[in-house]
Amino acid sequence: MSLINDSIHNLKPSATLLINQKVKEMRSNGNTIYHFGFGQSPFPVPHQIIRKLIKNAGNNNYLPTAGLPELRKEIAVFLKKHQNIKSDEDNIFIGPGSKELLYQTILILNGTYLIPKGSWVSYLPQVNVNNRAYAILETYLKDDYKLQPDALEAFCKKNKPQNRILILNSPNNPTGAIYTPEELKRLATVCREYDLIVLSDEIYSQLAFNTPFATSISNFYPEKTIVFGGISKVFSAGGYRLGYMMLPETFKVLENSYRSLFSETFSAVSAPIQYAAVEAFKYKKRTRQYVTAAATILDAIATYVYERLTEANIECTTPRGGFYLVIDFTNYTQAFKKINITDSVSLAKYLLEHYNVALLPGTDFYFRPDEYVFRLAFVDFNGKKALKEYQKNKKMPLNLKFIETFAPNIVLGIQKIIDFTNSLK
Amino acid sequence: MSLINDSIHNLKPSATLLINQKVKEMRSNGNTIYHFGFGQSPFPVPHQIIRKLIKNAGNNNYLPTAGLPELRKEIAVFLKKHQNIKSDEDNIFIGPGSKELLYQTILILNGTYLIPKGSWVSYLPQVNVNNRAYAILETYLKDDYKLQPDALEAFCKKNKPQNRILILNSPNNPTGAIYTPEELKRLATVCREYDLIVLSDEIYSQLAFNTPFATSISNFYPEKTIVFGGISKVFSAGGYRLGYMMLPETFKVLENSYRSLFSETFSAVSAPIQYAAVEAFKYKKRTRQYVTAAATILDAIATYVYERLTEANIECTTPRGGFYLVIDFTNYTQAFKKINITDSVSLAKYLLEHYNVALLPGTDFYFRPDEYVFRLAFVDFNGKKALKEYQKNKKMPLNLKFIETFAPNIVLGIQKIIDFTNSLK
Repeated sequence: MSLINDSIHNLKPSATLLINQKVKEMRSNGNTIYHFGFGQSPFPVPHQIIRKLIKNAGNNNYLPTAGLPELRKEIAVFLKKHQNIKSDEDNIFIGPGSKELLYQTILILNGTYLIPKGSWVSYLPQVNVNNRAYAILETYLKDDYKLQPDALEAFCKKNKPQNRILILNSPNNPTGAIYTPEELKRLATVCREYDLIVLSDEIYSQLAFNTPFATSISNFYPEKTIVFGGISKVFSAGGYRLGYMMLPETFKVLENSYRSLFSETFSAVSAPIQYAAVEAFKYKKRTRQYVTAAATILDAIATYVYERLTEANIECTTPRGGFYLVIDFTNYTQAFKKINITDSVSLAKYLLEHYNVALLPGTDFYFRPDEYVFRLAFVDFNGKKALKEYQKNKKMPLNLKFIETFAPNIVLGIQKIIDFTNSLK
Repeated sequence: MSLINDSIHNLKPSATLLINQKVKEMRSNGNTIYHFGFGQSPFPVPHQIIRKLIKNAGNNNYLPTAGLPELRKEIAVFLKKHQNIKSDEDNIFIGPGSKELLYQTILILNGTYLIPKGSWVSYLPQVNVNNRAYAILETYLKDDYKLQPDALEAFCKKNKPQNRILILNSPNNPTGAIYTPEELKRLATVCREYDLIVLSDEIYSQLAFNTPFATSISNFYPEKTIVFGGISKVFSAGGYRLGYMMLPETFKVLENSYRSLFSETFSAVSAPIQYAAVEAFKYKKRTRQYVTAAATILDAIATYVYERLTEANIECTTPRGGFYLVIDFTNYTQAFKKINITDSVSLAKYLLEHYNVALLPGTDFYFRPDEYVFRLAFVDFNGKKALKEYQKNKKMPLNLKFIETFAPNIVLGIQKIIDFTNSLK
């Protein structure tokens, strides 16, 4: 037996973090980089949340393993009022990021994990560390890479492992797509028929464009959907490291497993951070206005990016929420061969070196290497300044001038991408 | 295949946390409890550390997975200057508590884990969750339950699994014992002969009584000792959740495994907390004075508890550092039979119900149920007030009057324990 656990040894550092470090390096060497690689919120944490952290900075208590009761209660209320999900504080669990909670869920639940092509970068590594079986489900650009009920059903009919667990993410990273209520309803029907468990990653929920939040599949499949969320995206507090999980009543039997596992790993989330998060989930008027403003600015930038790419005949998904869209260069496959590029990873390197444009290759999101698909994150702009300006005058048009002023790197970077495709013609 | 992972399903919540919750419950029902069960620092976080947290409360960045470079550097310097351990910032890794780092280490390292009887409550559950083999090594009260080199050697001679990993904890939880340099040297010789890996849990290091820190086995076995520590005990910041790990050069090959695993689980420790911890490990004069004062007060209380128990002919370990000692009631085994008590868990319940005294049974620390051994934590006192008083006048004698004034529950609780043993005579 080798000393190092193989399933860890074979693991690569998360590509999103790696690209970010590479970009930092290039930037520190004086290079201007158009950084479409990393998906951190560009906005500052709302003042009222920071104030609560400051107020509780001296709190050195170990909180209950499942989380601060007051916070669990606020999240249950928040989910009901602002995400239309019925839950009870006893069903809410707090962890150091929803990523850790998802990891522990995969550790707890035996089964085959179903991941739609075009899903978050960490799902599969987490499945692999835990030696779980998995399948990547096919999706298509015409559907904005959303999983279609017939694709799910076809898979379930053909394959009959005992426990099947579908990981669904809406608003989606990397595509920016949001499942409509109708789509979720139809997926739920298949899930119920084949007795699937759904892990619903809704970390971007309130960053939906033109709607206060994205619809949850748990509305249609409450009995077997575990919902994940946190403060990283909606409240721009990624660095704080706090996420939550809503366990439906059906899985009450798992509660002790989670509590025990928490108590043998991270114990509880940092106390000052949990108290700060209470303020976030109270979702008072000022916080709601902040989130709406953030979503509006993101929408304006997303629309700008989408329109410019589409005008230039570059295929991409339609962003409906969050920080991302997916570009598909597959039409240029022949041209890439001429410049000796045969997969999306080499193309990502080429773009970074020749155009100073950082995009994440689709291979990290379960696309094949010969699919020239990339995640484009449109958050490389000064969110603090943009937000301040917009909050001064909410009637201001978020037009080209606004974008050129507050997100110049986005404008220049998109031009670089267009220059690149033009060079191929 | 069952849906729930058996190794998690069989896990019980950590007993230290459970007892604490039971005590809280009894207290909220109006009972006075002498709480010798839970080992949280009784002191407040030093002001200078809180101030740094406040200053960085708005920091929402995802920090590098291995930790903030500035913090890793300070810890390396701290370890050299204040724990006599040579290391480099590249060898330091930051996690949300040393418990999580230990857990991930056990996940990464295949092998048989050797746990001396009288060790921290979480080691074995962590080993079990990861389905690792283990052995409990015999220890004896006459040695303050410290592992003896001949016991280690006898085990290693008899059993030859491929990879053996010894978990050593000094200052020790639950015994309060500290391994002397001579003892560590002799243990190191055996470790080297049998090519063991040592996980050295030194979380209480600077809370050694009468010495600035406890000696580390890594002084004698640097090549294969991984050192663990954090801010929970020495800086009273348990609720902040930050620990570190020092990986020796020999294990450089593991660095990527740790980074990858971190990036797929907790990502990085909370940014504001990491900045606050920088101040702790700078270990400026004021912080050093705080730690010395805390250790002096703990020493006074430990000595009081030890002397009163010994005078009453109750056997116990000699506390040399940290928050604990171990009581051994095994001499009373016959008397327990008369009151229908046949194991230490029932005795713990009996003491809580009849004497309002909370002690943790030795079964949580790998003693057999028929060994009437208990952990006594002597931190149920107002550390803030005691520290303030002592800091006003460092020449004041920490005598009975001081203890009666600032730690009345300790005085009354110890009397309850003595009353209990008297009742058996």
